Amino acid sequence: MAVTTSVIGQPLPRLDAAPKLQGHVRYADDMQLPGMLYARLVTAPYAHAVIRGVDVAAAQAMPGVVAVFTGRDLLPDGPEPAERARALLARDKVIYYGQPVAVVVAEQPDIAADAAEQVHVDYEPLPVVVDPIAAMRPDAPAIRPKELEGEWAEAGMHATVGGGEELDVRRLPANITNAVRFRRGDVARGFAEADAVVERTYRTPFVHQSYIEPHVSLAVPELDGSLTIYTSTQGQFYCRNVVASTLGLPADRVTVVPMEVGGGFGGKTVLLEPLVGALALRLGRPVKLTLTRTEEFLLATPAPGAIFELKIGGRRDGTLTALQARVIFDSGAYPGTPVNVALLLLGGYYRCPNLLLEGYEVLTNKPGVGAYRAPGATQATFVIEQAVDELAQRLGWDPLAFRLQNASDEGDPMPNEQPWPTIGLRTILERMQAHPLWQQRHSLPPHEGVGIAVGGWPGGVEPCAANVRLNHDGTLTVTVGSVDITGTSTVLAMIAAAVLEQPLERIRVRTLPTNTAPYAGMSGGSKITYTVGAAVQAAAEDARRQLLEIAAQELEAAVEDLELQDGRVQVRGVPDRFVTFERIAQRSMSFGAPYPPVYGTGRSAITRSSPGFNGQIAHVRVDPETGDITVLRLVAIQDVGRALNPALVTGQVHGGVAQGVGWALHEGVYYGDDGRPLNPSLLDYDVPKAPSVPPIEVELLEIPSAYGPFGAKGVGEPPVVPTAGAIANAIAAATGVRLTELPITAPKVLAALRERSSTAS
Amino acid sequence: MAVTTSVIGQPLPRLDAAPKLQGHVRYADDMQLPGMLYARLVTAPYAHAVIRGVDVAAAQAMPGVVAVFTGRDLLPDGPEPAERARALLARDKVIYYGQPVAVVVAEQPDIAADAAEQVHVDYEPLPVVVDPIAAMRPDAPAIRPKELEGEWAEAGMHATVGGGEELDVRRLPANITNAVRFRRGDVARGFAEADAVVERTYRTPFVHQSYIEPHVSLAVPELDGSLTIYTSTQGQFYCRNVVASTLGLPADRVTVVPMEVGGGFGGKTVLLEPLVGALALRLGRPVKLTLTRTEEFLLATPAPGAIFELKIGGRRDGTLTALQARVIFDSGAYPGTPVNVALLLLGGYYRCPNLLLEGYEVLTNKPGVGAYRAPGATQATFVIEQAVDELAQRLGWDPLAFRLQNASDEGDPMPNEQPWPTIGLRTILERMQAHPLWQQRHSLPPHEGVGIAVGGWPGGVEPCAANVRLNHDGTLTVTVGSVDITGTSTVLAMIAAAVLEQPLERIRVRTLPTNTAPYAGMSGGSKITYTVGAAVQAAAEDARRQLLEIAAQELEAAVEDLELQDGRVQVRGVPDRFVTFERIAQRSMSFGAPYPPVYGTGRSAITRSSPGFNGQIAHVRVDPETGDITVLRLVAIQDVGRALNPALVTGQVHGGVAQGVGWALHEGVYYGDDGRPLNPSLLDYDVPKAPSVPPIEVELLEIPSAYGPFGAKGVGEPPVVPTAGAIANAIAAATGVRLTELPITAPKVLAALRERSSTAS
Repeated sequence: MAVTTSVIGQPLPRLDAAPKLQGHVRYADDMQLPGMLYARLVTAPYAHAVIRGVDVAAAQAMPGVVAVFTGRDLLPDGPEPAERARALLARDKVIYYGQPVAVVVAEQPDIAADAAEQVHVDYEPLPVVVDPIAAMRPDAPAIRPKELEGEWAEAGMHATVGGGEELDVRRLPANITNAVRFRRGDVARGFAEADAVVERTYRTPFVHQSYIEPHVSLAVPELDGSLTIYTSTQGQFYCRNVVASTLGLPADRVTVVPMEVGGGFGGKTVLLEPLVGALALRLGRPVKLTLTRTEEFLLATPAPGAIFELKIGGRRDGTLTALQARVIFDSGAYPGTPVNVALLLLGGYYRCPNLLLEGYEVLTNKPGVGAYRAPGATQATFVIEQAVDELAQRLGWDPLAFRLQNASDEGDPMPNEQPWPTIGLRTILERMQAHPLWQQRHSLPPHEGVGIAVGGWPGGVEPCAANVRLNHDGTLTVTVGSVDITGTSTVLAMIAAAVLEQPLERIRVRTLPTNTAPYAGMSGGSKITYTVGAAVQAAAEDARRQLLEIAAQELEAAVEDLELQDGRVQVRGVPDRFVTFERIAQRSMSFGAPYPPVYGTGRSAITRSSPGFNGQIAHVRVDPETGDITVLRLVAIQDVGRALNPALVTGQVHGGVAQGVGWALHEGVYYGDDGRPLNPSLLDYDVPKAPSVPPIEVELLEIPSAYGPFGAKGVGEPPVVPTAGAIANAIAAATGVRLTELPITAPKVLAALRERSSTAS
Repeated sequence: MAVTTSVIGQPLPRLDAAPKLQGHVRYADDMQLPGMLYARLVTAPYAHAVIRGVDVAAAQAMPGVVAVFTGRDLLPDGPEPAERARALLARDKVIYYGQPVAVVVAEQPDIAADAAEQVHVDYEPLPVVVDPIAAMRPDAPAIRPKELEGEWAEAGMHATVGGGEELDVRRLPANITNAVRFRRGDVARGFAEADAVVERTYRTPFVHQSYIEPHVSLAVPELDGSLTIYTSTQGQFYCRNVVASTLGLPADRVTVVPMEVGGGFGGKTVLLEPLVGALALRLGRPVKLTLTRTEEFLLATPAPGAIFELKIGGRRDGTLTALQARVIFDSGAYPGTPVNVALLLLGGYYRCPNLLLEGYEVLTNKPGVGAYRAPGATQATFVIEQAVDELAQRLGWDPLAFRLQNASDEGDPMPNEQPWPTIGLRTILERMQAHPLWQQRHSLPPHEGVGIAVGGWPGGVEPCAANVRLNHDGTLTVTVGSVDITGTSTVLAMIAAAVLEQPLERIRVRTLPTNTAPYAGMSGGSKITYTVGAAVQAAAEDARRQLLEIAAQELEAAVEDLELQDGRVQVRGVPDRFVTFERIAQRSMSFGAPYPPVYGTGRSAITRSSPGFNGQIAHVRVDPETGDITVLRLVAIQDVGRALNPALVTGQVHGGVAQGVGWALHEGVYYGDDGRPLNPSLLDYDVPKAPSVPPIEVELLEIPSAYGPFGAKGVGEPPVVPTAGAIANAIAAATGVRLTELPITAPKVLAALRERSSTAS
């Protein structure tokens, strides 16, 4: 079938840009329903404590309070769930500071807030475990009974990776909930053969996704006993499944209506929906819960902290000989971290004959963790890209040349011995090598430096379906089950427009709720354009075929002689022999009409992922007196397979790099020895502001995927991956010191500079 | 493909029976939205008058009143629309008593009602035309300027019929809006050859559909300027199209959400939605309008009144020689009646070589008319079935034998010379002939009589589409665009269950709103099971194929070796080799899963209708002193093609016969000479109550349709068609007098009996 792709590759604005700017979009918190109640959480002032009792009498007696629930009310017996979203309210003990212990439901939000302060909980404090290394000790206080059967599903829902040797956590200390090992060759021999070895410990903190919109859930008990939930979620079906199974309902008795997501970045899947659903079912009235910003920090699911104890060796000829690492992910109070992804990337970017990578996921008395854009990849890439850089330096190699020498290619094994598919890593490095900024790296003013890093994201896949329907007014509606968090609906419209050779204005994309939507997975893992795009492409091809068949009969012409134009089908070369889409609609959707409606369907099950790589060149200046770091410029080169909409793809890269700057220099949730978060507000948690984000130069490479629509690969996650490593390497280039702990702040730089001076003197 | 049909033919209860009985169904009037306003109409106290002015000041000044709109506010200039639903408010003159002239919108419904009484309209009365015969005169006052280009779409949306000679209404007097003629042979010669001729004038009144739920529309202005309308409608797409074109919006900017219909019978398509939509757009807030019962009578759309001037002749050998009729349908103030259908059936049931049928649609100062179950057929059948009965009597023939002698068969021409497809008319007559009640007709007590009538409904067709989706819990969801008014969703579920060989409990049917639904036509014309059923059947077959393909791969077996069981696919004869639907769902709708989701699609464009016939035997007793009529028993024999669910089909027959009793003996909206309705309330409008409805015996015949799913034909409309004729013929048998005007009430019987006595004496 001849398909023109004129709209593909056009830098078009998001279709929802104008409505969003004009305030025409309805968010979950905008929803008001008759009889709606407001919930407010009562949270724990201890990170680890036995709950001896909860006194709700005073709160319950307050006018306007409808009900107060405790953990015992919602879960009278049985073990407390090992998943954050299923653990509605703490019952026997609290395991992190800020954990919900009770919930007040009232007629007005201010009444609920006042009453929440009148709920009195009697706690018996327990020893707190904050440091994951300490938490791994056999004698550390156990945060929870070991859960062996938990479905820690979400952790695996962002990248299609696996393999490795699963260690038997039953033989390990109580707080270790996952342990995995990848082994290749003999690292001892590898290090023996090395001419230089770098051995360091790197640390990354808890980082919050910092979406603008906090979590909001509104649950409505339907008259038939089913439940409808309006929520800001990236994954309506996943949310629905967790709510239904937590509440003991068949999946189809819960409908999740996905509302506009005011920022997610992995942090909006399912969190409060099961709790709010339980409240609505108990009370028979709609219940809404909107988190405060502080609650976001206390009890939502930030990215986990991580510790990498790493050793890497190489020879003067530029080959790597061995890589060894013990990687510890701090999972907070619930299991589920991307430690596997981290290990696969840590040992996957570069060919290395001898590997020994061990990963541990460890519980501590901190909030449960969640996904944050490229989970695991950001941490691992910060580490390996500094280590390789430093090793190159010690071996007397140019760091870029050293990477090119060792970069994995299609067919090279990842640590799980699975071969990489086609990847852009080497091409990106070549582009970086040619870039003027890299070329100028030796002729910079004092205290400036240029550093590089590359990183990738394996990419997710998930089956899905989509429809394309002709409307009476000659427009077409694409119906999907996916939520638009990055402009994917605009791209889906473009795909349909391209296949149907129509202007974009004729296409509208609608996301249905779970009870009727064609299935789509969570908007995470950089997979919506890649997978739902393919389903939309197939559905549009189906609709196209149907349009042509009807037109052929109406025009008494062969399908092969027809062509599509704006809103019409015409006989090729005979522009006055045509039938409009409106006419086709009329002839297929009216009383007594002879043709079936144009209603195309596409189903997709891409099982091969197309990893996306991004390489960055950072140019920094470091003030030797204060340690202040200024990022002067960032160049980001990304293989996007095919830039279906270069404006949106570039926007994704900008956003990812900005968040990478946050990882590198700004962000971290810190915890006191008592497990209390020290900076749970946007006053103290340093999200990068506009002046902190440098000019970002984006270069898009197009090495087509064999699977994604029109060759597209996922683009959302890769740009955040290498930023911290590139900036750290630039700081090393500017100062000669290696900063191994994120975020790299002025005091840390100053301390490192002073330490070097004192060592040197 | 081997398809068992075990569930087909089972008398299962409606899936919505329990929720409805338990009050778990949400009707449009149950909807409450924040900021919602209430509208109340100001209606005209004249049937024909110039509007000299409208003073809204007093109403507007009342506290709680948000706005008052007049016709001029909504339509400042241009002609007033010639369609009831598009004529929002009268501007220049009112043309029927009760016509909306202004509307008050207030914060509370009682405020709106009080304020509506404070709107003062200055009228200049005009001469009123109530009698359609008078209205046809060239000197009759013209009700509206002749509209030649009006889209009187709805009238044609219930039966797939057409043809005839359209007369040029421009040459006819002003109030005639449609005129059609069917001619065959030479009626003069036919009457000359006749041995007996019956010539009579028959009249049927305006009849109201008398749904329990009045019209309710709730319009919500969306933030992006589009409009969402929640309404009790039988046809969401048709309603959407009328709203959009009336308000000048593209169709896709209006979404109609079809709510549960609390009775429709043809009277719930589109009425107030355009007006309420206009108010919501003007005010930027949700607006609800709920009609009072009196308003239902004043300004909704009852069935038209009709006058049949008929002459029929036949020979002693039992052949018909000629049929001539002038049929006048009283269209009220707006064009659009089923006069064509009436003529086609009037001249279609029986073979007749000479025909001259003329039909006229005439405007009068009464409310606009609408569809009511088998529109046109009920009136025409009452007439032709009495006339044929009387002619048989005069020719010395048994009335049933005479009908059998003349009954049309497959291939016989209708008045439009189109051949009948396979019809059950003759078989039904044979069954009636064999029925004990008919056999006993000559051995009844005094003052009792048995009469018969047969009638049919051509049946509607309209293209449509449907989906069948596998859910995570192993259930299946059928998605359609049709509204369930008669239990069709239960039958659609049964069709899917049969194709997928699943218990009915696994199937759920959901109707989507217009913005996303697979297209379906209005629930009218007895076509939902017939057409949407076919689309669901195709979608279920598609889903079945997909289920088997995935199971074949999972089980490493050939599709041919697999069979479907309750919630699983198994290898035939090896019951322990199986895969559950839940497992298939998991393997096709989860992260990294290998199969596409099971999501079947079906499209249907049946272009051939399958007429449904019904024959009834009525047994009545007439009190010679009072004229009181008691229907002792009614037998209804219907060809349903295939009774997919005999309980629901029987329920349809019961309901239709009960309404037929209403036509026969009870119902009529009457108008004074000033055009004012005389009985606009359920106190005075006599809907048959339970004691008036006799025991109804239903016999279902199954002469399969070649097109409908599993052979089904439409069943909703036929049962109302012959009841009035059968009862009238039974009265004639009991009394010897012919009652030619509906409803047949005791005073009319008494008058006829007295007239005969006086004539005889």
